[in-house]
Amino acid sequence: MRQATTIISTGTAGRGLTDITAAIAEWLHETGIEEGLLTLLCRHTSASLLIQENAAREVRSDLVAWLDRIAPEGPHYAHDDEGPDDMPAHLKTVLTGVNLSLPVIGGRMALGTWQGIYLAEHRRAPHRRQIALHLLGT
Amino acid sequence: MRQATTIISTGTAGRGLTDITAAIAEWLHETGIEEGLLTLLCRHTSASLLIQENAAREVRSDLVAWLDRIAPEGPHYAHDDEGPDDMPAHLKTVLTGVNLSLPVIGGRMALGTWQGIYLAEHRRAPHRRQIALHLLGT
Amino acid sequence: MRQATTIISTGTAGRGLTDITAAIAEWLHETGIEEGLLTLLCRHTSASLLIQENAAREVRSDLVAWLDRIAPEGPHYAHDDEGPDDMPAHLKTVLTGVNLSLPVIGGRMALGTWQGIYLAEHRRAPHRRQIALHLLGT
Repeated sequence: MRQATTIISTGTAGRGLTDITAAIAEWLHETGIEEGLLTLLCRHTSASLLIQENAAREVRSDLVAWLDRIAPEGPHYAHDDEGPDDMPAHLKTVLTGVNLSLPVIGGRMALGTWQGIYLAEHRRAPHRRQIALHLLGT
Repeated sequence: MRQATTIISTGTAGRGLTDITAAIAEWLHETGIEEGLLTLLCRHTSASLLIQENAAREVRSDLVAWLDRIAPEGPHYAHDDEGPDDMPAHLKTVLTGVNLSLPVIGGRMALGTWQGIYLAEHRRAPHRRQIALHLLGT
Repeated sequence: MRQATTIISTGTAGRGLTDITAAIAEWLHETGIEEGLLTLLCRHTSASLLIQENAAREVRSDLVAWLDRIAPEGPHYAHDDEGPDDMPAHLKTVLTGVNLSLPVIGGRMALGTWQGIYLAEHRRAPHRRQIALHLLGT
């Protein structure tokens, strides 16, 4: 049994989802671990991680629009000194979550056929985001 | 330290929650691992995993009704080619999440007295759903 | 590779967030494990765990107010025999989640600078809450 850790950095283009599945899979492959447990932690409070459909692009745009409806910008936040999109970004981060744990079986993450891993940027502006990775296995 | 993995398959009856606590506990028991970490991943984008009260049945029906209010069917989705219940099912999956990690102590999942593990089906129709399990420990 | 488990108990002051980062870090330090994986499970169905900003206090009060808007008290729940705040508390628990997994690197949780770990109490009254901890590493 052995473990590996790293921190990867990903640029975002502002509000929206970035598919990071291939980057994660590449790091997993480099470690040579075939069976184990992979954990991801997004080290921010206004960006998050989620697993969603990797086929129809409209699923992602509908998701981003729904998050805007559920956590809208507006005058009802006490925390507004970092811009009107900041507090909604914190709320969307809480709703979607910042960590994922994935079984690794046969050298691959045990994702379903239609599942991709996405970094969700909730601020309007592009940001550079860090994700801590931990892998344990054989 | 050793590990075990498997993929279990569970049928759902359409929209609603299925208690999978006993099935998970049975697999845990078979492995003989007494202290460790158990991870579950639902391999779908319109079904999810959650932990909720295993006593009052109304908690689950109120939860399902609330998810319908928060992610309603309607004309405001671009992704509608798989039926009106598909995009809301993706949104409910994001809100509730597809993975869980549970400490194992004394041969049992460290759940509270009132906690059960549920597979949440968000599509109207019955489906067969896969859950990847990973266990690490001694 | 070795592991450690414990169950910690924390009092809450009723609805709101309690910063438990220092308590978790203290236990981590006592184990002497420098690199590994830390898992937390809140053993309740009306309290939860989340990671959010540890700087501006208004982020937490805005979050609590938003959860009240999204899962309001009201006459629309069948489950009401434990008080009007009980069913909303279950819903907020599902939305925010009861477990977290954190890579440990260099003897510290790999949290970002602005991230703190919070126990979220969703009932009106103060409660004592248990969190199961599991740590695996070297």
